[in-house]
Amino acid sequence: MAEIRRRKEGEPVSDDPSSQSDRRSAADSSDHVDSEEEKSPEDKYVEELSKNLPQGTDKTPEILGQALKDLPDRWKNWVIRGIFTWIMICGFGLIIYGGPLALMITTLLVQVKCFHEIISIGYQVYRIHGLPWFRSLSWYFLLTSNYFFYGENLVDYFGVAINRVGYLKFLVTYHRFLSFAMYCVGFVWFVLSLVKKYYMKQFSLFAWTHVSLLIVVTQSYLIIQNIFEGLVWFIVPVSMIVCNDVMAYMFGFFFGKTPLIQLSPKKTWEGFIGGGFATIIFGFLISYFLCTYQYFVCPIEYSEELNSMTMACEPSPLFTKQSYSLALLGLKSTSIRMYPFVWHSLSLSLFSSIIGPFGGFFASGFKRAFKIKDFGDMIPGHGGIMDRFDCQFLMATFVNVYISSFIRMASPAKLLTQIFSLKPEQQVQIFDVLQENLKNRNLLNLNMN
Amino acid sequence: MAEIRRRKEGEPVSDDPSSQSDRRSAADSSDHVDSEEEKSPEDKYVEELSKNLPQGTDKTPEILGQALKDLPDRWKNWVIRGIFTWIMICGFGLIIYGGPLALMITTLLVQVKCFHEIISIGYQVYRIHGLPWFRSLSWYFLLTSNYFFYGENLVDYFGVAINRVGYLKFLVTYHRFLSFAMYCVGFVWFVLSLVKKYYMKQFSLFAWTHVSLLIVVTQSYLIIQNIFEGLVWFIVPVSMIVCNDVMAYMFGFFFGKTPLIQLSPKKTWEGFIGGGFATIIFGFLISYFLCTYQYFVCPIEYSEELNSMTMACEPSPLFTKQSYSLALLGLKSTSIRMYPFVWHSLSLSLFSSIIGPFGGFFASGFKRAFKIKDFGDMIPGHGGIMDRFDCQFLMATFVNVYISSFIRMASPAKLLTQIFSLKPEQQVQIFDVLQENLKNRNLLNLNMN
Repeated sequence: MAEIRRRKEGEPVSDDPSSQSDRRSAADSSDHVDSEEEKSPEDKYVEELSKNLPQGTDKTPEILGQALKDLPDRWKNWVIRGIFTWIMICGFGLIIYGGPLALMITTLLVQVKCFHEIISIGYQVYRIHGLPWFRSLSWYFLLTSNYFFYGENLVDYFGVAINRVGYLKFLVTYHRFLSFAMYCVGFVWFVLSLVKKYYMKQFSLFAWTHVSLLIVVTQSYLIIQNIFEGLVWFIVPVSMIVCNDVMAYMFGFFFGKTPLIQLSPKKTWEGFIGGGFATIIFGFLISYFLCTYQYFVCPIEYSEELNSMTMACEPSPLFTKQSYSLALLGLKSTSIRMYPFVWHSLSLSLFSSIIGPFGGFFASGFKRAFKIKDFGDMIPGHGGIMDRFDCQFLMATFVNVYISSFIRMASPAKLLTQIFSLKPEQQVQIFDVLQENLKNRNLLNLNMN
Repeated sequence: MAEIRRRKEGEPVSDDPSSQSDRRSAADSSDHVDSEEEKSPEDKYVEELSKNLPQGTDKTPEILGQALKDLPDRWKNWVIRGIFTWIMICGFGLIIYGGPLALMITTLLVQVKCFHEIISIGYQVYRIHGLPWFRSLSWYFLLTSNYFFYGENLVDYFGVAINRVGYLKFLVTYHRFLSFAMYCVGFVWFVLSLVKKYYMKQFSLFAWTHVSLLIVVTQSYLIIQNIFEGLVWFIVPVSMIVCNDVMAYMFGFFFGKTPLIQLSPKKTWEGFIGGGFATIIFGFLISYFLCTYQYFVCPIEYSEELNSMTMACEPSPLFTKQSYSLALLGLKSTSIRMYPFVWHSLSLSLFSSIIGPFGGFFASGFKRAFKIKDFGDMIPGHGGIMDRFDCQFLMATFVNVYISSFIRMASPAKLLTQIFSLKPEQQVQIFDVLQENLKNRNLLNLNMN
């Protein structure tokens, strides 16, 4: 990243086309690695593009800048990054204290900001300044896909509650149809907005928008689904990624020698391995800790009795201590008692420390492809929101798949909800078949006594 | 499309980089609409790209070429197009005769070919000749997403059958996890395959691949789902799109005067409206006809008793004639008997004639964006497979959403299957709650008598 970091700090980020020439000359003074001789029109095009991209600035809050002005740059960056890491961790803690609903809203906001960061790069890359409709179109697609995905969740979890309110019933019952109708409107709108000479740009941005939706919206939907399974399924993976990020940075900073991957010259094997071990240990500790609180392990559910959301439950066997014999380790008569979830946390920490970093490499390759330093400049020392969440999305998908493959069983409660949404005669029909079947298997007698 | 059609016919389509210079000079002789003065590096880049794209050729089979050589070009194209339309319609009929399984396999093959056509354009646009891994990577992603989507279908429908075979059980139970693992392998592979100086091309192609998967694979998955609901849900929409295409072409050919959309100068309002009316009438006729056969209206299901797939059923009320009073039309005492499905076909034909064509406009805009004439040259007079299926994908999604919103109810049979997959004590638990609830609502008494 060296040649990019050398760029002047504090360069103005502006959409105003009139300021382009200034920025262009400023960017021209930065070094270009490609030698002049092999420049095809395409190379020139990419180069031209990079001059118009919003460059994340290392803007340091003034008060910090004053306090740290005597430190060497390397340490300064380290301190700022450290401070804002702690600020983020505390903010994260506060939101968790706020409960699942606060978390879901945060996820929604983060998602919108990530989408904004990615899509802004797209606008700059294809320089669609003269086509104002396109900006609205992207946001319209974001709205549509959010209605679709969040709707699916809400229908699943709050279906009973929403159905009570007459005018909302329509939004639930025909939710999928309405989302598709909204999408079709956007699609037609796109086709009608096509302007000659801009076709290629417009199609590229259309694809760009859809890939952003794929990355940001679908995966944040999975995060919300995970939160519904219990806070633990959100906190553990998210904090693992943070831990891995921080510890890999620390190990790399102090012991880093062997470069890991050509793409990110700053990443080292020492950081990768050290971060991995730290994550596994951290994963065990935090999982054990969280398992002791109902607040973290109980899924949030709508309670018909209380007529509100509740987070009280009989913890599932996964979060109840079980005995494990240590025979494998040669200790025949000894056994330990442990939450099964803690074993599962090993899979999560392995994924977050082996595959997780590739999310970061991917993002870093993307940034180099379009010659930008960071996705944004929201968090001093870190860059944009997207810079911190690059690995979280992949992790969330893993957790979701993991839950659906190894953890979740069809729950009697959900099936009952489905049964009660049938017509009365169908409910009776199910009852009859079930009764007949259970009788034949002698399962009902136990119950009748 | 005029300026594109004027391009020399029979230009060789080749991947061989050594032949590029020939093609370049051939393409140079074709006219460019953009005036020289406003050419930015980007315009030049787009122009450069278009020189390397595979151009669909209007290759006419030799025997036809001989027979038609005295006809004017306009008529020649019309005759060839007509002949191959009939060939396709007959082929389509044969496949339907082959039953749902034949149809699903055909859908799979069409999907692969469409993916191939779209992705080939991508390769040519970004000219990744020196990066052989990338080709494999795209196909790997196609395989992965097919395993994921087709797997979901197979699990839903053949779950019981597949579970019997021991070693396949693994593929079903952990199907989602395995697909995700496969995807992660592809993801890591992509990151590792990144080569400096090619970053932007590689990321663009990565996005290209994912958008293709989104368009082709997810929507062909929806087609398969529709087929499982009954052949009628496949045949009616597909033939509506064909009818709309053909009739709009005919009406446009004979009566076309008023241009419809700037994007496709050949499309006219006369064709659009004429095609729409023809489609609605056609929709009524074919729906009525198909409703009279069990073969078309019964969903294919695995029968435990027969130990094989079956397409026999008691047709649902949707496909059973109901009486409708004509009071609204002022005919109080008169009523007609009609299949409810025929009314639904109106929604389908409206969609296929109003929104459907926008699928075609979209594809045609895409082709203009990258300055290609057709997606391929598989079907003489028509172009590539993708040229004929552009509207089918959108339509399939509509049908799928329509079914899930307005037609399909949670079926008692499916719920029972889910209940019986639970643990015995959970089954009893459901039984108890259901019994309690039905008793309270006095629904059980009816049954007990």
